[in-house]
Amino acid sequence: MRRNSKDTELRERARLVIPGGMYGHESVSMLPDDFPQYFSRAEGAYLWDADGNRYIDYMCAFGPNLLGYKHPAVEAAAQKQAAEGDTMTGPSEAMVILAEDFVAMVSHASWAMFCKNGSDATSMAMVTARAYRDRKKILVARGTYHGASPWNTPVLKGIVAEDRAHIIYFDYNDLDSVRDAFRLAGADIAGVFATPFRHEIFADQFLPSAEYAHGLRQLCDDADALLIVDEVRTGFRLTRDCSWSIHGVQPDLSAWGKVLGNGYPISALLGTEKVRQAAASIYVTGSFWFSAVPMAAAVATLREIRTTDYLERIITAAQKLREGLAAQAELYDLPIRQTGPAQMPQILFEDDPDLRKGSFWTGVAARQGIYLHPYHNMFFNAALSNDDVDRTLEATGHAFSQLRDNRAAIPSQTNLRLLERLKSRSSA
Amino acid sequence: MRRNSKDTELRERARLVIPGGMYGHESVSMLPDDFPQYFSRAEGAYLWDADGNRYIDYMCAFGPNLLGYKHPAVEAAAQKQAAEGDTMTGPSEAMVILAEDFVAMVSHASWAMFCKNGSDATSMAMVTARAYRDRKKILVARGTYHGASPWNTPVLKGIVAEDRAHIIYFDYNDLDSVRDAFRLAGADIAGVFATPFRHEIFADQFLPSAEYAHGLRQLCDDADALLIVDEVRTGFRLTRDCSWSIHGVQPDLSAWGKVLGNGYPISALLGTEKVRQAAASIYVTGSFWFSAVPMAAAVATLREIRTTDYLERIITAAQKLREGLAAQAELYDLPIRQTGPAQMPQILFEDDPDLRKGSFWTGVAARQGIYLHPYHNMFFNAALSNDDVDRTLEATGHAFSQLRDNRAAIPSQTNLRLLERLKSRSSA
Repeated sequence: MRRNSKDTELRERARLVIPGGMYGHESVSMLPDDFPQYFSRAEGAYLWDADGNRYIDYMCAFGPNLLGYKHPAVEAAAQKQAAEGDTMTGPSEAMVILAEDFVAMVSHASWAMFCKNGSDATSMAMVTARAYRDRKKILVARGTYHGASPWNTPVLKGIVAEDRAHIIYFDYNDLDSVRDAFRLAGADIAGVFATPFRHEIFADQFLPSAEYAHGLRQLCDDADALLIVDEVRTGFRLTRDCSWSIHGVQPDLSAWGKVLGNGYPISALLGTEKVRQAAASIYVTGSFWFSAVPMAAAVATLREIRTTDYLERIITAAQKLREGLAAQAELYDLPIRQTGPAQMPQILFEDDPDLRKGSFWTGVAARQGIYLHPYHNMFFNAALSNDDVDRTLEATGHAFSQLRDNRAAIPSQTNLRLLERLKSRSSA
Repeated sequence: MRRNSKDTELRERARLVIPGGMYGHESVSMLPDDFPQYFSRAEGAYLWDADGNRYIDYMCAFGPNLLGYKHPAVEAAAQKQAAEGDTMTGPSEAMVILAEDFVAMVSHASWAMFCKNGSDATSMAMVTARAYRDRKKILVARGTYHGASPWNTPVLKGIVAEDRAHIIYFDYNDLDSVRDAFRLAGADIAGVFATPFRHEIFADQFLPSAEYAHGLRQLCDDADALLIVDEVRTGFRLTRDCSWSIHGVQPDLSAWGKVLGNGYPISALLGTEKVRQAAASIYVTGSFWFSAVPMAAAVATLREIRTTDYLERIITAAQKLREGLAAQAELYDLPIRQTGPAQMPQILFEDDPDLRKGSFWTGVAARQGIYLHPYHNMFFNAALSNDDVDRTLEATGHAFSQLRDNRAAIPSQTNLRLLERLKSRSSA
């Protein structure tokens, strides 16, 4: 019997002392009631909620868990460093080693700067691009997520128009639209944010065309503007290099986060030689940016990335799930769209404008210990086994069957109204 | 014999892979050569540099170390949580307990939101203040430090004018200047940042007058604007409550960081009931904001703050040092100004416009294993013993003596030119 009394108690207590009970990307306020808000334990590919129910976790803490929770090599490195020192009056040797190792792995990079949030890294990219030639205009693809700072947060409450005064929006994968944006920016063009592929909530994912990727590079070169790849969500799940190397395109700056320390808090900005001086000229810092433990964890994480088949295992498991789900969807005559790379899948039901099918289906899966997401892209980790995928498919088979039997009677959940509100607010 | 070969090697390697070799507030580029850049170990009140030289540390990682590095109760709580889970797909029970405990300790607070950087907390305060009544103007005292985001970083490279379009500056401790700023803001006034006391680099520290603190509160009340206390640097070193409670003034919002987890990465925004809805309406988040280990560490840190005499011990040690230094300065006829609370001291030499005396003096102390700072406020921690202060005074006595004997011949260090540049750039 599945319990949720502890989760219910924690939600009630949280409502008193946290605005809205919870905030940010890990709030489950728009998810079906079957999803727990609080977790008590994580190991390998598994999560346990506050009531002790176990899940095979396809969210990976919204990305950070790349190698498996509590990966032995990463934990050993972190504990070794913690026994010496973490947040001190200056950095440790781990910072230098990490910068050396990271720069050696990413083709375009000749230097690294470390920070905490993904938003820190994308904001530093913006400021560095403006410092590079003392220009102001930053191009961003309409609707892409690059963090939750005033200049890029998707919800505009508390944000002023001037926070985005020099941001020019264009349409992804549309070079004509990019050219229009360059014309608008004129000689004041500083840089362009490139999303490795489109991975927005509520929407199908899609890849950039090679023409688009190369076109962006060329337009930046012609204007002496900087091309910035925001690798925060995608890093090291597509390739062991910056992900646009797949298209043969090297950026001037890349922003990294999430997976870098396999869960330890660290993010980074990488750049090319020509941008080094601009990066050195800006002032950015944070109380915990130079802490040694996350850097030691990142050194170990990068070593696993370089020396193991973590990525091939992730892709194999992801493709197995994708094929299994496709067969089930056909069997139950409930068409789904599985978009984006299999290892970062988005799964949306056809003919499901308010997501009630997806919510019902993921809710049934959650009750069986499978943590899927109804509208955010998911993440695979290297600890996920063949057996885990088999168990997942058993559960999703049951969920498809339940959905088929109940499709006429599924209520539109109240919290989905919130979703509609958010969708309307988040259009840039 | 003091070694520095490892530090030198790390600096040379860093120069290749980190812009400028190092960045942010922990860069020693403007400090005398005697100061190490890299550290290998921390315990209690002590730090060891990369070459194994030990220091009594008066910087406390620029604040975070409140109870002593590797405080047993904090480490035990963190390790217990780490054995269960840290960065997961949602928060843990520790988040609710932390919010409950923190809110119970701080008089004005009825809710808490957690984040990573001090800049996250001050930026959230700004956005929340704007969301509160949908107004735009934010008042900030000229020259105060509130973080390193585009709207508040002290160096303007890469920053655009619009980042500060709705920030109005006033003079600290000058109610007429504040009233002028309110008039300029008019009906669009959202909030006012109050620095608990002035603690700027290169400058004497000073406290707010009671009239000023109460006047700010009254002006905010009259205009339905929010009073924001930025407690990031001062938190729990002045009192066990929000520090303006000393003046009998309660803010609407307070930003916290640094000490909250005694070195574990966590910061927070606290607020009153009337601001709860505004705080719930903004969108802020970060990949590691809900990680459990720093929250468990913070719960333990707050418990130590509530239940031990850590603060009284800090103040006793700090006053002993202040008195000892005052006597030495008089003995050697080298007048110094010791400003601000003794437990967050700023020590500047009279007649020392380019800081060459202070740099020489702290340099001599550093060579003897005492880590003082020539132009940034320092921080005491509760692990510092009576004997540590005695040893410090032995070293500073020697430093005063050396300074007296060499005062005519002390060179102005090249890196102090950088300081002049920074001083000219940082005037808001």
